[in-house]
Order: sequence, then C-alpha cells, then structure tokens
Amino acid sequence: MPTLSRSRESLIRSLASRHGRKGSPYCLCDGPRASYEVLTLRPELVEEVILREGTSLPSGVSREPVVLSSAGFERLSITVHSQGILLLVRRPEKIVAEAPVIDPFAFVLDRIGDPGNFGTIIRTARAAGLRQVWMTGGSVDPYSDKAVRSASGAQFAVEVREHGSLEEVLALLGSKGFSRVYRTSPAAGRNVFTEEALFEKSVIVLGNEGAGVGGIPGALDLNIPMPGDAESLNVAQAATVILFEHVRRMSAAGARQHGLSE
Amino acid sequence: MPTLSRSRESLIRSLASRHGRKGSPYCLCDGPRASYEVLTLRPELVEEVILREGTSLPSGVSREPVVLSSAGFERLSITVHSQGILLLVRRPEKIVAEAPVIDPFAFVLDRIGDPGNFGTIIRTARAAGLRQVWMTGGSVDPYSDKAVRSASGAQFAVEVREHGSLEEVLALLGSKGFSRVYRTSPAAGRNVFTEEALFEKSVIVLGNEGAGVGGIPGALDLNIPMPGDAESLNVAQAATVILFEHVRRMSAAGARQHGLSE
Repeated sequence: MPTLSRSRESLIRSLASRHGRKGSPYCLCDGPRASYEVLTLRPELVEEVILREGTSLPSGVSREPVVLSSAGFERLSITVHSQGILLLVRRPEKIVAEAPVIDPFAFVLDRIGDPGNFGTIIRTARAAGLRQVWMTGGSVDPYSDKAVRSASGAQFAVEVREHGSLEEVLALLGSKGFSRVYRTSPAAGRNVFTEEALFEKSVIVLGNEGAGVGGIPGALDLNIPMPGDAESLNVAQAATVILFEHVRRMSAAGARQHGLSE
Repeated sequence: MPTLSRSRESLIRSLASRHGRKGSPYCLCDGPRASYEVLTLRPELVEEVILREGTSLPSGVSREPVVLSSAGFERLSITVHSQGILLLVRRPEKIVAEAPVIDPFAFVLDRIGDPGNFGTIIRTARAAGLRQVWMTGGSVDPYSDKAVRSASGAQFAVEVREHGSLEEVLALLGSKGFSRVYRTSPAAGRNVFTEEALFEKSVIVLGNEGAGVGGIPGALDLNIPMPGDAESLNVAQAATVILFEHVRRMSAAGARQHGLSE
C-alpha cells in the first residue's frame, strides 16, 4: 500500500496557505464531489489520492490511494469538516494567448475576489455549456482549495484563461474578432433579456464584487432588470442570469430548428 | 453616549452559537451592508447599534450607536474579519398561516441547510420582486448571522414564511388555491423556459443541497436545461434561473402591453 513521503506531506501542508500556493505547480482538491470530478476529468494531473481510514474512493474511480489514520489525515487537511478525501493535483497547463476562442462569446471575470463566487461562476458556466472562462490578473487564485470546492472541480473541465489586465484581455479578444464589449451595470443599459446580439462574437465582462466593472472605452452597459427594491445581485447570481439567458436562447433556437413551437 | 449593559453583552455573545439562537427572540446583523438594510427597512426592530471606534454609521442612517474599543468590539463580534458594525435585532414577527399569498406564485425552500445558499436565495428573490419566500421546518435558521450577511438583510424585506413540514406547507398553499406543484429535478421534466403556466398560482419547490426534493404526490418535475456535462447546479443558482425567468416573462409582457416588440 502506498505511503506519503515526508516531502509530499510538507508540500501539501504548504499549499494550504496563499503564500505556499503562489507560484507552485500544484494545488489541492478537497472533498468527495470535487475529487470525483478531478479524478474523472483529468486523472493524469492527480499526483496523490489521500483517504482518511474508513473513507471510500468515489464510486467509478480506480486509483491506489494513500490511507492515513484520522490524526494523520487531520494534520494535512485544510477544511474544518473534511470529508476524508484530499488530492494533490498538478495545475492545468496555462493556455497560450494564440489559442482560439471556442465559445460563441467570451465570458470575462474582472478581479473577482471571493473564491466561493469565482468557483460558483465556473461551475455554472460549465453547466451552461461554456468551454472557456476568461479572467484578469488580480483575481482570486482559480485553483485554491476553496475555489476548487465551490466549483466542484469545474476549473478542470473548462479552460480558465488569464492574459493580464482587463485591457490586455480585451485587446487579445479584439484581435480575434471579439470586439463588441458589454459590461454589467446595475443602473441602466441594454436589457439582458432583449439585447439581440448579446451572445454573438461578443465579450461580456463581470466585475469585482465591491467595485463593479470599471470604465471600458466603447463598452455597452448591460442591465439585468430588477423589479425588487434591492440594490444589486451578487456577482455569481448576475453571472447565472446571463449564462442561462444564453441557454434559453439556444434551446429556443433548437426547438425552432426542429419545427417545434417554443 | 450610550453604553452596553452586562446583560446585553452576554446576550449578544450567546447569539453567536446555534444553541444560544434557538428560541431567542433576537438575532445579530453583522457588517455595513446588511446593517444598512436592516436599519433602513425595519428600524423599529433594532435594539442596539454597536460600532468599533473609528467606524462610521452607514450614510443615511441616524441612530445613536454604542461605540466600543477595538478589544471590546472583538469580544462581541462573530466574524473573523468584522467590519466594525454589529446590530442586535429583534426577529421579525412570525407570519400567521391565515395570511394571504401575495405573490403570483409560491417559492418554497425545502430543508436548505447552508446559510450562505439560503441567504443568497432570499436576496435574489427580493431582487426579482418577490415579497414572500416559503420554507420548511428543518431548514437553516433564516436569521442566523451568516444567513443575514449572505442575504444582505433581505429577510427583513420579504416575508419568510415557515409553516412546518413540506406536506404542511403544500396543504396550506393548496387551501389558498395554489395547488399546481413543481419540484426541481436535475434529470428531466418540464422545461423552465417553456412551461407556460409555471408562474400562475403555482408552487415551486427547491430542495436540499444533497438530497434534492423528495417525492411529492402529484407534483410536476421542473427541469433547467444544461448543455454542459456538469452534474447539477448549486441550489442558489437553480433558484436564480427560475426567479429571473419570471422577471424575463414579466418584462416581456410589459413590453407587449406597451406595444413594443420583445
């Protein structure tokens, strides 16, 4: 039965801190749900599978785990209520700037600071069928344990593309023919439910939780109608409304194509 | 300048634990955003406004605060990175079973266990214009500090109605003429984007994060199309898709009424 080397143990412990993660080619994945996804989606990136004694591998996964005593596992584990499985994973390779845009529109996260929000958005983008999510420098670490848990490992299913500042990301997308830019705005702007060209070779930028999206020369304001008196939606909820408006239009177009009524 | 009595101080400390909250007529509100909402929406429920020295009241609020030293404030405060404002609040009065349904449909949360999810859903329901959210016994405490923070205090703007088990809630709604029940289902069912009568005197039930909604005799399955290969959406994201599909239809109906094209 495999065991965990000293150096591996101290590597894992170091990854629990932001400082230890910075620049590291590794990350951690915690809990059965995200672990199942990572083991299924990218098994070749998984370096160690660590179980607490008495815990089973997610069903459908065949992989020789390291089994630790409760005490040994707690020494490694990063969450308070760990569920007995932890992976040491190599980070996915960085996508080069030359790589194409493969979705009908580019979904850009600008300096999202909360790993829970970031992870939820990646998970939702995956469910909505996107294969890429774009982010700016200064955002959260997309492979922190919290982000991986919130995303249920979806950052191993979609390409997370990071190419510098918002200006740099927009310039890169513009050079690929994606030059009509929408920025979400709580106040006013084009209606997300009626803007016809919203998902046609466009760029949609969602901003930081506190500050929102900054000024972007030439960008169109995009508004989610809110009948209630609330100030605004959480950024992950705004992302969900936009992503599933795309799903709705796709499924309506599919129904039309098949001669069915909407 | 007001000060904090010993008994108030120990009351506040007791509310940080689930045990202390249970059966208490009080709850806590933490942080500037939720505090602003509660002070604006339900000022008559606020018993104490407590600031850490150097922190200001949210603008637009006039209320005499208790100002504590950093050390005194930290002794009371419940979050690790507190932002220097804490309210002691009476819980809103329980809504009696006889009270009417005031929304076009009833949105029911069945045993939601995570205060962050619960709070996010309440906040989103408020933004979508709902004035009531229904919940079953065995759900999270709707007025825990985490739920209040995640909701930005929205549980003080909408009625949170709790009337026992799911069976009891559905029987009560049925007696008020809300008898067509939809339960969300990840597998199959009526399409949320095309089901015509979805928001017409209906009941929509969202289930527990792990278990989903249990069997409900006579209920219709409701499905959110998911082009991606993900297993499911987070319950708060599913709620957002449904709530903003309602907003979309309302705004489309409004545009038609005004003779505008969609």
